Amino acid sequence: MRQKLIIWTLDWVPEGPRGFVRDLRLRWAAEEAGLPYDVRTVPFDGRETSHLDRQPFGQVPFLTDGEISLFESGAGLLHIARRSEALMPRDAVGEAQTLQWVIAALNSVEMVTVPWWFLTITGQSDNGLAGWMDQRLAHMERVLGERLWLAAGRFTVADVLMADVLRVARLRAHGERPATEAYIRRATDRPAFRKAHADQLAHFAAADRARAKPG
Amino acid sequence: MRQKLIIWTLDWVPEGPRGFVRDLRLRWAAEEAGLPYDVRTVPFDGRETSHLDRQPFGQVPFLTDGEISLFESGAGLLHIARRSEALMPRDAVGEAQTLQWVIAALNSVEMVTVPWWFLTITGQSDNGLAGWMDQRLAHMERVLGERLWLAAGRFTVADVLMADVLRVARLRAHGERPATEAYIRRATDRPAFRKAHADQLAHFAAADRARAKPG
Repeated sequence: MRQKLIIWTLDWVPEGPRGFVRDLRLRWAAEEAGLPYDVRTVPFDGRETSHLDRQPFGQVPFLTDGEISLFESGAGLLHIARRSEALMPRDAVGEAQTLQWVIAALNSVEMVTVPWWFLTITGQSDNGLAGWMDQRLAHMERVLGERLWLAAGRFTVADVLMADVLRVARLRAHGERPATEAYIRRATDRPAFRKAHADQLAHFAAADRARAKPG
Repeated sequence: MRQKLIIWTLDWVPEGPRGFVRDLRLRWAAEEAGLPYDVRTVPFDGRETSHLDRQPFGQVPFLTDGEISLFESGAGLLHIARRSEALMPRDAVGEAQTLQWVIAALNSVEMVTVPWWFLTITGQSDNGLAGWMDQRLAHMERVLGERLWLAAGRFTVADVLMADVLRVARLRAHGERPATEAYIRRATDRPAFRKAHADQLAHFAAADRARAKPG
């Protein structure tokens, strides 16, 4: 019998990022796959240096699966997807399609949307990435106007990742992108997303209560 | 018998990007793996819209392998790595280590270095990503000070990708990072890198000669 997956996240975060911390991606994938998992934590305080042996950039999440340990949410997603056909087709063509869209979410879309967001929240008056981001989001709007899910004609782990990337980008990137909006709604209406999202909010709310207790 | 891999790139590029077009990553990986491949092209002119059916962001490279087609250099690398143990260990722990560092190159390092470079070349006077990039490169310097290669105690496809990412970042990101410098040298001294690099330069030089010919 295989051991339970363990998804590692922070023990607490401020209100702003709740519902967006990337352990949500791994929770969502595990829920879609029906794989049992536990959630464990590393401390928010000192997070930039306290767990560099397990996540060399001082971030979360990371994933353990028996003796296997992986950081990077994208790597964790591909690892979980190999354990369940619910997340990735088993034929070579379908698997390649899924893989290319996982990487596209990380390296063609998020590579622009996250730095754009970083410049925005750090108060850059002229966000020099805006034009580039609009181009990338326009490409995605065209793709999503032609299909319900990205790869292999079905929901896959690529949709877990791309929907999460686009959901975050949408918070601040305004524009008329109806196919993208519909795609985000389709993805986040899934019971597995709803449960993962609610569980993350509950996790951090419980941490608030624990912190409020005297010593 | 499996068909030859086909690596798709542009038929011509200006001098600036030569030696850096990402087909180099796939050439390098195929050379390391000893897998035969051909290089084919799509036109530089009109590249943003002419091959969207095969690369939805209008970029190169993409890869075909019989009936399988993949865009995103990171996806192509993982696909090639599954065909050769020279690029990825076959044990679960070694494979997970390789996978996490492939994704880290794409989503923790390049997600900062490429937008930073974009802001730099488009003449942003205050590059708001500089501090973030310095942090990420400092994390890599620490990691590379402790080991020769990123994953599983040996050269893997993660080094193909990370060395290429750092090689490009180094062009403009000055700083004292001796372990990173040594890593880039180790990687780019490999015969497979040298051949891939020389072949890409020769490919675009031949394109110059073809364009110079009258009609």
